[in-house]
Amino acid sequence: MIFLKKVGKQTILFDNPPTISECASIVGPKEAQGPLAKFFDQTLEDEFWGEKSWEKAESKILKETVNIAISKSGIPVNKIDCCFSGDLLNQCISSGFGLRGLNIPFFGVFGACSTFVESMSLAAILAESFAENVLCATSSHFCSAEKQFRFPLELGNQRSPSAQWTVTGAGSAIVSKSGQGPFITSITPGKIIDMGIKDASNMGSAMAPAFADTLLAHFLDTGRNPSYYDAIISGDLGYIGKDISIDILKSQGYDIKANYNDCGVLIFDKNSQDTHAGGSGCGCCASVFSGYLFKELKNKNIKKILLIATGALMNSTTSQQGESIPSIAHAISIEI
Amino acid sequence: MIFLKKVGKQTILFDNPPTISECASIVGPKEAQGPLAKFFDQTLEDEFWGEKSWEKAESKILKETVNIAISKSGIPVNKIDCCFSGDLLNQCISSGFGLRGLNIPFFGVFGACSTFVESMSLAAILAESFAENVLCATSSHFCSAEKQFRFPLELGNQRSPSAQWTVTGAGSAIVSKSGQGPFITSITPGKIIDMGIKDASNMGSAMAPAFADTLLAHFLDTGRNPSYYDAIISGDLGYIGKDISIDILKSQGYDIKANYNDCGVLIFDKNSQDTHAGGSGCGCCASVFSGYLFKELKNKNIKKILLIATGALMNSTTSQQGESIPSIAHAISIEI
Repeated sequence: MIFLKKVGKQTILFDNPPTISECASIVGPKEAQGPLAKFFDQTLEDEFWGEKSWEKAESKILKETVNIAISKSGIPVNKIDCCFSGDLLNQCISSGFGLRGLNIPFFGVFGACSTFVESMSLAAILAESFAENVLCATSSHFCSAEKQFRFPLELGNQRSPSAQWTVTGAGSAIVSKSGQGPFITSITPGKIIDMGIKDASNMGSAMAPAFADTLLAHFLDTGRNPSYYDAIISGDLGYIGKDISIDILKSQGYDIKANYNDCGVLIFDKNSQDTHAGGSGCGCCASVFSGYLFKELKNKNIKKILLIATGALMNSTTSQQGESIPSIAHAISIEI
Repeated sequence: MIFLKKVGKQTILFDNPPTISECASIVGPKEAQGPLAKFFDQTLEDEFWGEKSWEKAESKILKETVNIAISKSGIPVNKIDCCFSGDLLNQCISSGFGLRGLNIPFFGVFGACSTFVESMSLAAILAESFAENVLCATSSHFCSAEKQFRFPLELGNQRSPSAQWTVTGAGSAIVSKSGQGPFITSITPGKIIDMGIKDASNMGSAMAPAFADTLLAHFLDTGRNPSYYDAIISGDLGYIGKDISIDILKSQGYDIKANYNDCGVLIFDKNSQDTHAGGSGCGCCASVFSGYLFKELKNKNIKKILLIATGALMNSTTSQQGESIPSIAHAISIEI
């Protein structure tokens, strides 16, 4: 017998909600100097971690993060029914290569920086239907992302003030049918929203309307308002996207300013770390949730959180061809 | 009340199986000269279809295939709960751009050429839990794939005899909670298998072990043997991968030769079309199933089919860095 039902246009409620059994996170050297450093399971001293390329390093970060999550959970690998994983590299190679030794049925997912919450959403549905335990993992790497999406690091290019800094890091979560919580009580998968923004160095502006669309849908579908949550956290809109989001929501009659923050704002120190508009990347939301927010929930410092990860569904070819940036945001509510 | 359960190591059985309500397919000019031409909903006269780039053409093919599927099904768009879509282009841009106007909650998936069956697997689970109708769509394009993964077409490079020809085309299916069939009666999601093959011009060899692993798991989990199915169809192993697969299965005690074939073998004529090892690409399995096999099921020419799509989880950077090719295969059984 399974308890999940759709309410309103796009929200799924879990009457017997799945639990997040365990999380793990590993981040890079810059993240290790940020305000959340003490929450991560492991921090790296350099961007290579003994590998010969940044891509191989990213695969290793993902793989080891998953190993830590499984190890901390105490769940035998053969009791994990399947896994969802994705990343920003072309053809999601960090996931494919990082998890090739795992021996667990694998679903590759791609939602750009929204991938972590997309994974947790699908994991929650599977845990409510046939699965006992489902693994989720997501990664990004500053150097591999800059190389692929922007300019070779060796060029030493200036970065635009509206650009965000891709987080080197990974997060992993195990979603289980039963347990002590925190519980995933609802999911609101997002639609693709494209408001015509074309500047690939201003992702916050491109993604903010998608965040607003999903958040509004969640409020309308559930009848909740911002004060229902102790914290509403966006995936990685950064400073610019965060401000735009507050304005859009205000224009729609919702004041989210009091309890709203963003993973890309939280992970770096604005004054000392020179990341311009804040952090971004699949690994940003994944590591901030798995490292920081999950522990805040476990310690009951936060009791109800709405996590909304945002993603820009473009690549460098589409920007070169003059296209705008379709964006998406997926939401999950997590409660203790 | 929902009826799905895991059997054995990695198979999910549906006691009250979801139905494939409708399918649609559009293919390119070369596919239109192949033996399955009459089965596709639309065939194109050139690879651009009025667009300025192959990437934009591929997005259009995906978008229009989805529109045909929805139109044929008669299901109102607002009754489709969500959609799964993916493709081979970096960051799955055909899906993101092709479906940005759809206004349906969107889950991006990536399984290389296995993406269509990955989508249908997840769609079936969602249709068994909360969803009434779930849309699946997958595409590939010969020119955009060659440009991205191999060499610019303008170079006129020779192709290796073991190379496969990426299909220009898309397939779309709508999976519904209830209906007249064909029914998705089980899914066997695959694990990542990497046997060390490094030749990116020999994908059939790289992917055959993943096909064999999933097929063996399906037989062991369900207690079925090859004769249970009227047809066992692999995603796109081509001629070389097909032969290897028959050999691997034989070594494990299963003779699949009598009722086994491959989408990459079926879509092109070996003698006249010069595609070397056969067809491949996300759009191969998607269009062959949506165009040909779905109609064979509807017309009761085939009653039980096991569709196993295979994917190579690599990109051009990993090949340049000397990596081998991790592969995956997802299986669904479809019965009338």
